[in-house]
Amino acid sequence: MSQNPEEKHYVTYGSQQNSDCGCGCALSPESVKITGCRFALNIMDDRYISIILGALQKTDTSKIWQDTGRLSTVYRGKQIHVEDAVKACFVNAFTEGVHMTMEMTFSRGCPGDVNADVTLAEDDVLQNEPRIKDIHFPVDCKIALYPMGIKNYMEHIATVVNHAIDLGIYDRSTHYCTVLKADVHDLFSYFDYVNTYCSEHFSHYVFEVTLSVNSPTKE
Amino acid sequence: MSQNPEEKHYVTYGSQQNSDCGCGCALSPESVKITGCRFALNIMDDRYISIILGALQKTDTSKIWQDTGRLSTVYRGKQIHVEDAVKACFVNAFTEGVHMTMEMTFSRGCPGDVNADVTLAEDDVLQNEPRIKDIHFPVDCKIALYPMGIKNYMEHIATVVNHAIDLGIYDRSTHYCTVLKADVHDLFSYFDYVNTYCSEHFSHYVFEVTLSVNSPTKE
Repeated sequence: MSQNPEEKHYVTYGSQQNSDCGCGCALSPESVKITGCRFALNIMDDRYISIILGALQKTDTSKIWQDTGRLSTVYRGKQIHVEDAVKACFVNAFTEGVHMTMEMTFSRGCPGDVNADVTLAEDDVLQNEPRIKDIHFPVDCKIALYPMGIKNYMEHIATVVNHAIDLGIYDRSTHYCTVLKADVHDLFSYFDYVNTYCSEHFSHYVFEVTLSVNSPTKE
Repeated sequence: MSQNPEEKHYVTYGSQQNSDCGCGCALSPESVKITGCRFALNIMDDRYISIILGALQKTDTSKIWQDTGRLSTVYRGKQIHVEDAVKACFVNAFTEGVHMTMEMTFSRGCPGDVNADVTLAEDDVLQNEPRIKDIHFPVDCKIALYPMGIKNYMEHIATVVNHAIDLGIYDRSTHYCTVLKADVHDLFSYFDYVNTYCSEHFSHYVFEVTLSVNSPTKE
């Protein structure tokens, strides 16, 4: 795995802008419009390959850009279309009695982001929601929000967590995350609130979510 | 799930300290010594319960504090003992031919953290390393580092990624994460470098890692 030192291509994050600014202030207006979600489905069952491939195939991704690798899939585009597609992927993978988790990283405004690898649909008509809107099941969820480059991030995290309390989907706060419990639609509606809040208040944020269904572990 | 408004217990992150300071400056010196790792094993196999329980049972957690819930397990203590235990848990769960992922969140210095729920061992003798040091297998990995409350976080991320390039474990940079490929021991050695770098440079950081073995997806 060793490389010739002269052949090393180092990354240069942070050095092409003002040295004390890592908040995206050097970005073009277009690039910060890109919402992304990197996610991975984990199916605790021998049939995991067919369940994952089936879910990905059933999901309409015509209004977003996507790339699937060994570790995860990434969707990039307008916020509502990214949310619509990733929600559909999760709902399409849900299998009665099968324990499944999904790890999701929503993000927007990374100073290292590029104005490429994206589809920005012109309209807001959701491709998947009409086909999944009547499918309901309970989900255990943990979330963690990381507003980057600002000092008062804890106050913003409190605002977002308190909104979950107002919605009645909050279960508890614990080390390094907040635990939610709700129907799948109520959770994704909340994620839309969080992503909207973040894009209005921060130049760069990361919102980490893990969903779990059909866990055999008792409460 | 609705609650009586008078009974709501809101969170108050950020409000008990200087309003523009969310960097842990109000913490007691003890609490910032606590390194934590919240993690979850995902086993893509019908035998997932016995594999996970077997791995947890084989792991010596006498030098850390632990709590297991429906969504994940958290270890808290001295950095080297937390790393030793979480590494052992992953190695102990490894099963030839079984696809498995592990999601890990390392963190230290959260301003909302409490100086409790922790075991701080007096010595640095590792409990698990002697039993796992000769077990080798290749791992696919993605990482993302979030130094909180500072503006020049991108430069620090570049430093940490460039160290992975120097070590020869770097595969590529992609949207929202960096991809690594290495033997399990080289990866955990790198995580120790990252956690040490972060505890020396930041009052609060979060380091997200996902590990994957035996993936059926082609490169």
